[in-house]
Amino acid sequence: MKGRNNMQNAMDQLINKIKETNNPTVIGLDPRYEILPEMLKKKYPQTLEGVGKAIIEFNKHLIDSVCDIIPAVKVQIAFYEMYGIEGLKAFQETCQYAKEKGMIVIADSKRGDIGSTAAGYSKAFLGRTTIGEIQVPIFDVDFVTVNPYMGTDCIKPFVEDCRKYNKGIFVLVKTSNPSSGELQDLTVENGEEIYTEVAKLVEKWGEELRGTYGYSSIAAVVGATYPEQLSQIRNIAPHTYFLIPGYGAQGGKAEDIAKGFDANGLGGIVNASRSLMCAYQSDKWKDQFDETQYAQATRAEALRMKAELSQAITYNK
Amino acid sequence: MKGRNNMQNAMDQLINKIKETNNPTVIGLDPRYEILPEMLKKKYPQTLEGVGKAIIEFNKHLIDSVCDIIPAVKVQIAFYEMYGIEGLKAFQETCQYAKEKGMIVIADSKRGDIGSTAAGYSKAFLGRTTIGEIQVPIFDVDFVTVNPYMGTDCIKPFVEDCRKYNKGIFVLVKTSNPSSGELQDLTVENGEEIYTEVAKLVEKWGEELRGTYGYSSIAAVVGATYPEQLSQIRNIAPHTYFLIPGYGAQGGKAEDIAKGFDANGLGGIVNASRSLMCAYQSDKWKDQFDETQYAQATRAEALRMKAELSQAITYNK
Repeated sequence: MKGRNNMQNAMDQLINKIKETNNPTVIGLDPRYEILPEMLKKKYPQTLEGVGKAIIEFNKHLIDSVCDIIPAVKVQIAFYEMYGIEGLKAFQETCQYAKEKGMIVIADSKRGDIGSTAAGYSKAFLGRTTIGEIQVPIFDVDFVTVNPYMGTDCIKPFVEDCRKYNKGIFVLVKTSNPSSGELQDLTVENGEEIYTEVAKLVEKWGEELRGTYGYSSIAAVVGATYPEQLSQIRNIAPHTYFLIPGYGAQGGKAEDIAKGFDANGLGGIVNASRSLMCAYQSDKWKDQFDETQYAQATRAEALRMKAELSQAITYNK
Repeated sequence: MKGRNNMQNAMDQLINKIKETNNPTVIGLDPRYEILPEMLKKKYPQTLEGVGKAIIEFNKHLIDSVCDIIPAVKVQIAFYEMYGIEGLKAFQETCQYAKEKGMIVIADSKRGDIGSTAAGYSKAFLGRTTIGEIQVPIFDVDFVTVNPYMGTDCIKPFVEDCRKYNKGIFVLVKTSNPSSGELQDLTVENGEEIYTEVAKLVEKWGEELRGTYGYSSIAAVVGATYPEQLSQIRNIAPHTYFLIPGYGAQGGKAEDIAKGFDANGLGGIVNASRSLMCAYQSDKWKDQFDETQYAQATRAEALRMKAELSQAITYNK
């Protein structure tokens, strides 16, 4: 697999893939039944098992169509968990397939719990589960997203597995949603916002896991929808890579996103889910591609997005 | 099922079960392979499937042994997810079995994400998943734990399903772990702590879902390990029921827990996981029960804990 080397720091692996493809995009695979092409809906029965299979087929075609131009995939587990065990099987198979195709796999699960429980989650996504003398990898993705509300001891087990297995985490710092400020923007006694405090914690948690580009495998989620904060956090957390959601459908623009990048054009990876997955339905592409060509439409939109990001990020240098 | 009525407000259902059993205990079922009795480990192969089956057998025996004296079960999904799909099947079967035995089922998953994604999680745990014309329940538990870091729009989809399906949520307010204060105790501009702000939000989110006892189906997690805060939050959030972890192994005492209760002896449900699940290994019970009697040991410890809580909570009145 080009650009993948499991002996390497996870953030180095991700950055190498970004450089290789010259594209800081991560494709979000959040395939609810409603958004699947009609041909796929008709092919499988209207059962949880049928939906699971339809999702796997959809995801595999999308991965095939972009794995040479997009470095990473973000798989939002909520949209699989909502289809129960069959959905979670599709989650696992999607992660596995993307890895086989050389993509970096980010499980978007926003897990967080007290130490011993966090260790369970970390085993599920990053580490190994022990059964007697046997150690078994479970989802075995490259990165997982993590919620910081419970503090350091909810993060530590993940950090330990990151060190042990060359994995990484993205910790929620400033999220892209409208009400993210309710708690995250509250100002504390020293005059700084909660998200600033979290950004500083992330820098600290990641100190020992910095790779050759200076960025740590302990990284952060910072939304494109808050460009000022994106710029502010870039300054506070110079060793922290950003997973940037909120581009496209949520309103984040390429020039906003550019504020998360450094002078070398590194520092962030931009998520697009719906705009890529459902490109075949969009005004931009629906005249050019019919629904049997959904994967080609996704590729076309991926190339358009890559060009747009590339221009904005260069401009920002 | 005695004390269960799905047409009723979820918090009323829980409180009715607590009153019926006269016991504010929730048994946490977090059965890692390491803590299973040797006889169970030997009965099943050392594979993920084998562990899944061993866990189901263990859980079912524990549920059988306490379902007439303990009102509710808390199933921590991390300890199932770490065994992959087979573990998650055991999670689902455990939840289903506990419901059949008339217990209130709390899925401890601490989910939290932006609106549309939170809706996916809410469907998985509380609501229904739509496939074309069909609506399918997935885990279909009574309550799920939720993380508030992303604000109101991460909570709303859960609240809507609570209203629609008579379900409930426990929102993390002040957690029981050592580093919970790192973010939760930060003081904001008005001089109050973050957890206070969250407690007030929980009261607001739950306004329209209050039941006949005055408590809302939108409830809170408040740790036994911080008794002062437990007492403070009881005053701030008079309509908010507490799920209280941290009793026993984590150091919370019965007299600490009593501070979370009101003058009527209501207001909280106290979780014990390891001390109940592994009672057969404890100094208290290991001379009386061998490992084949693990379920009887759990029942004995459950009765001891009930007596201890009952005394402490009465004393507090």
